[in-house]
Amino acid sequence: MPPADTRSVKPRTTARCQFQSFNEQSDPSQVAPRIAALRQAMAGHDLAGFVIPRSDQHQGEYVPACDERLAWATGFTGSAGSAVVLVDNAALVVDGRYTLQSSAQTDTTIITPVQMADQSQEAWIEANLPSGGVLGFDPWVHTPDQVRKLETAAARAGGTLKAISPNPVDAIWSDRPAPPSAPVVSYANQLAGETTSAKIDRVREALAKAKCGALVVSDPHNMCWLLNVRGGDVPHTPLALCYGIIKTSGPVKLFIDPAKLSPAVIDDMIGACQPFAPAEFVLALAELGKAGLTVRLDASSAASAIRDAVEAAGGKADVGADPIALMKAAKNATELAGSRAAHRRDGAAVTRFLSWFAREAPNGDLTEIDAAIELERFRRETNALKEISFGSIAGAGPNAALPHYRVTTASNRLIEPGIFLIDSGGQYEDGTTDITRTLAVSHVTPDMRRHYTLVLKGHVAISRAVFPKGTSGAQIDALARVALWEAGLDFDHGTGHGVGAYLSVHEGPQRIAKTGHTPLEVGMILSNEPGYYREGHYGIRIENLIVVEPRTIEGAEREMFGFETVTLCPYERALIDVGLLNQSERDWIDAYHARVLAELGPLVGPAERSWLEPACAAL
Amino acid sequence: MPPADTRSVKPRTTARCQFQSFNEQSDPSQVAPRIAALRQAMAGHDLAGFVIPRSDQHQGEYVPACDERLAWATGFTGSAGSAVVLVDNAALVVDGRYTLQSSAQTDTTIITPVQMADQSQEAWIEANLPSGGVLGFDPWVHTPDQVRKLETAAARAGGTLKAISPNPVDAIWSDRPAPPSAPVVSYANQLAGETTSAKIDRVREALAKAKCGALVVSDPHNMCWLLNVRGGDVPHTPLALCYGIIKTSGPVKLFIDPAKLSPAVIDDMIGACQPFAPAEFVLALAELGKAGLTVRLDASSAASAIRDAVEAAGGKADVGADPIALMKAAKNATELAGSRAAHRRDGAAVTRFLSWFAREAPNGDLTEIDAAIELERFRRETNALKEISFGSIAGAGPNAALPHYRVTTASNRLIEPGIFLIDSGGQYEDGTTDITRTLAVSHVTPDMRRHYTLVLKGHVAISRAVFPKGTSGAQIDALARVALWEAGLDFDHGTGHGVGAYLSVHEGPQRIAKTGHTPLEVGMILSNEPGYYREGHYGIRIENLIVVEPRTIEGAEREMFGFETVTLCPYERALIDVGLLNQSERDWIDAYHARVLAELGPLVGPAERSWLEPACAAL
Repeated sequence: MPPADTRSVKPRTTARCQFQSFNEQSDPSQVAPRIAALRQAMAGHDLAGFVIPRSDQHQGEYVPACDERLAWATGFTGSAGSAVVLVDNAALVVDGRYTLQSSAQTDTTIITPVQMADQSQEAWIEANLPSGGVLGFDPWVHTPDQVRKLETAAARAGGTLKAISPNPVDAIWSDRPAPPSAPVVSYANQLAGETTSAKIDRVREALAKAKCGALVVSDPHNMCWLLNVRGGDVPHTPLALCYGIIKTSGPVKLFIDPAKLSPAVIDDMIGACQPFAPAEFVLALAELGKAGLTVRLDASSAASAIRDAVEAAGGKADVGADPIALMKAAKNATELAGSRAAHRRDGAAVTRFLSWFAREAPNGDLTEIDAAIELERFRRETNALKEISFGSIAGAGPNAALPHYRVTTASNRLIEPGIFLIDSGGQYEDGTTDITRTLAVSHVTPDMRRHYTLVLKGHVAISRAVFPKGTSGAQIDALARVALWEAGLDFDHGTGHGVGAYLSVHEGPQRIAKTGHTPLEVGMILSNEPGYYREGHYGIRIENLIVVEPRTIEGAEREMFGFETVTLCPYERALIDVGLLNQSERDWIDAYHARVLAELGPLVGPAERSWLEPACAAL
Repeated sequence: MPPADTRSVKPRTTARCQFQSFNEQSDPSQVAPRIAALRQAMAGHDLAGFVIPRSDQHQGEYVPACDERLAWATGFTGSAGSAVVLVDNAALVVDGRYTLQSSAQTDTTIITPVQMADQSQEAWIEANLPSGGVLGFDPWVHTPDQVRKLETAAARAGGTLKAISPNPVDAIWSDRPAPPSAPVVSYANQLAGETTSAKIDRVREALAKAKCGALVVSDPHNMCWLLNVRGGDVPHTPLALCYGIIKTSGPVKLFIDPAKLSPAVIDDMIGACQPFAPAEFVLALAELGKAGLTVRLDASSAASAIRDAVEAAGGKADVGADPIALMKAAKNATELAGSRAAHRRDGAAVTRFLSWFAREAPNGDLTEIDAAIELERFRRETNALKEISFGSIAGAGPNAALPHYRVTTASNRLIEPGIFLIDSGGQYEDGTTDITRTLAVSHVTPDMRRHYTLVLKGHVAISRAVFPKGTSGAQIDALARVALWEAGLDFDHGTGHGVGAYLSVHEGPQRIAKTGHTPLEVGMILSNEPGYYREGHYGIRIENLIVVEPRTIEGAEREMFGFETVTLCPYERALIDVGLLNQSERDWIDAYHARVLAELGPLVGPAERSWLEPACAAL
């Protein structure tokens, strides 16, 4: 959705993206009848209210269409938010990114958009749930921690909280899409680098150490990693939606729609893993409980219904970290080799795009959507692109100042002289990429160059960082900010997120942010993306992916780590104010550019190489 | 206690410290009869075990003699640790600092010293408490959080936990010292800068915001700050041990030994505060409970007995942060003016010491104790010294490599050529100081100079840091380490702790450390003390106190903060390798030295000024 000052324009091209749509379809007129039907269903349960989070039963970033209950009920299609529907009023609670979009997409005569910073979901419940009222929730789409917060809020209002399952929305959702059933494919050992049985052994060691008799895997990314399979159930991530149960011995139980499994895939799994229909999952949880086991549940993805099922049957739910998350985060040598190959391929595609952009942008008729479509085309021309790893962020002028901006037909801007920011990535079978470049279009101001250079200094500081084993991302996050801080500037997002190996482009638990307390381990892939956003004017972000690697330092007394940069693509020299760089920063950038030219030069055409060579010359 | 390789020597001087003893008195032969008596007392309560932490009922850093139960029962006099006494065995759990000291001070045939890193107190209980056994604890010397951990440990062993009050140790401690009753003195408004009633108003605002009907103040530092009084019940801190209760109206209740209060002090308090005998505290807690109030308790200092008393009477205990802690942490203009004056005075005393040391140390006959005694003498000669703010850390050679080293007659080393580290501070009525200088004695090696300079670079990085409002100490801690990290080195303590205003030299919640998540606020005083420790050889630490101050930066878009350095004293130029400093570091050091000379020059004698002038010359 556009900020108020944006004039949307038509794209120049009539081509389309294969993996991304720029339409934010929403029909606010549907909100009234749907909320009315929900209220009728609520009455049948004697409910004073019902909570509809955006989450699905895996707390996933991408939600399949059949689980887009929030969008169905409220019209709001953003990636985060929740609705609380009471008998006489209703709220749609969203964060700052979605202020305008929530108001535009929902029917505000029925549902009041609420800014999370002004009032949290819990505060709204506390203020609005009638005393004595029962607030319903679907225990499959909230974690125990989320339920606890709802419970406190309901109690503060003098009401109570009640689990309602199945979800009453599903009963009134007449044209609800079927659950996705994309085929599961094997992820070959020459890509995964570790057999499923070796991975299962490691998980069992971790379970024994934690004194747990079983692990319920509620995050499907973790199951895909464990079983060396991938799927296609949600956009932008090769994910097979499923659950798993791992006990101290016997085959891993996989709960998945059997339609997704080919005989070949089932064959690959034999021995390590036994598939079951999803309907058998709850029975299997009860069995764990009956056996009196301590069952590890993942605090960030396991639904409270899972905990309830284990405990109701007599088991002990140990809500903590799924040990797979940390194993999956530290990539092995094979995965890293794959990531490097993917980044060379992706870097060549982005370089071709930059060369095209340098030629076309000065004409003045390109729009944000044109750039996004063209970049996807260059990636598809690698003949290896499986998907883009997220909807491109292509921002011109003030749109670039919105860190999470997604271009739509309604917000599409002409790319005018100044700064253009493009943040995008690809899913290749050997790796997931994520890169941001901020580009100069014709004339740029001294302020733009100064701000770009301050961001670049932070980006280089992270790239060059060395730190002892045990250091967390929280400890080094400030290195990306010092240059900006010295100028009285900052940016309001973390410096980096974890990235998967042909899995999610947003992967935990590793991150470089003040909340990133997981120690960085060798093999972890992270983004390095400081930024600067001048509201209403322009935005800057520079992003490479980096890998934690061991470092040998003469005379070192500690085990030291540093980062290998795997993203290959030149920075925007028209935006670099060389006078603001110190010698070690210049040396690092020159060495990086030399490497970019050496690795990508042979992968692009002669015209593109003619563009790349000066782009990679020493500063 | 000495590390194994230390040869202790006699001090050169026969002078004594007024505020510090170098004897670690302990008589291991007392352990057997005392533990036997305790086991008899345990039998009377049907206990299988009893826990003796080092803590008193305020969880204070300094414990009055009457509460040194751990030292009485085990002989161990360290500042942290705990004993678990079972019927057939017993453990003394200490951290790495106290490995040698615990073994030397206790009777190891009766009590097994356990290293916390090898086995926590809880793990030892889990492994050793007999199944079905009842583990006793004194609910006045454990916080609710500590009790929860003991409870889990006892349950894992198949046993249970039981509160025993009064403490069975007290019943068998025949020659137990009387509680301290140093006179309480008023802390004048021209030092405190804010009246008690204004402070109380602020606390009440915070209570209203937190929806609490009352606050129990269990940390006596907070009561002393609130009531603008000081005392003398523990070493090194002008603390009056007491409790307080603040309700939404009416005078603050102060629970304190009436012998400590002079008529003049009582007069000063009238209106704002009403004193009660300590015995009335529990009754007052029950009254809060009976009134059905939500009572805020301080998670870090309130005993579980306080929570129990409130809850047993029907109140709701809200265990969280005492809002006074944050108010006390951000010093007002008057307190900061006092701190600056104290630091000029203290800086002059330390400068006189340094000039003396530069003359005497090369003779080769000085010992660590001589240096500590002489430094205290220079401080006393200010005629303003009330106390030293902690026992001096005076370390020569390998002793300096122990960050928490305290010199004793048994560990006292000759100060030989190389590095000497001295970390010390004073308590003046207008402020508390804490300074570390690492000094060159005759010949120093290139490695020593390189390591000193790397530590100094980190120290200067913190001194020069600017950061937006909202930044925590955890976020900037790494700035003190980057130079060391680049050389493969690090130090295993935080970079800085909070410091009180004529109160504790260790004050929370502000700190510069990876666990310091409190946002830094204007007026907070912190230490800036990175270090480097080469085990068995030498140690380096450089410490100044710094104050968070607002910063004006041209073009700034954020509210920015930085640090004012209040400690005044030259660095050791014989240890600075100027070639390792960049220009901004040199500029900062030169400007600091110029300021030191300008401010301290007039406060020292001619001979000392002759030493100070070259010490403060530009590098």
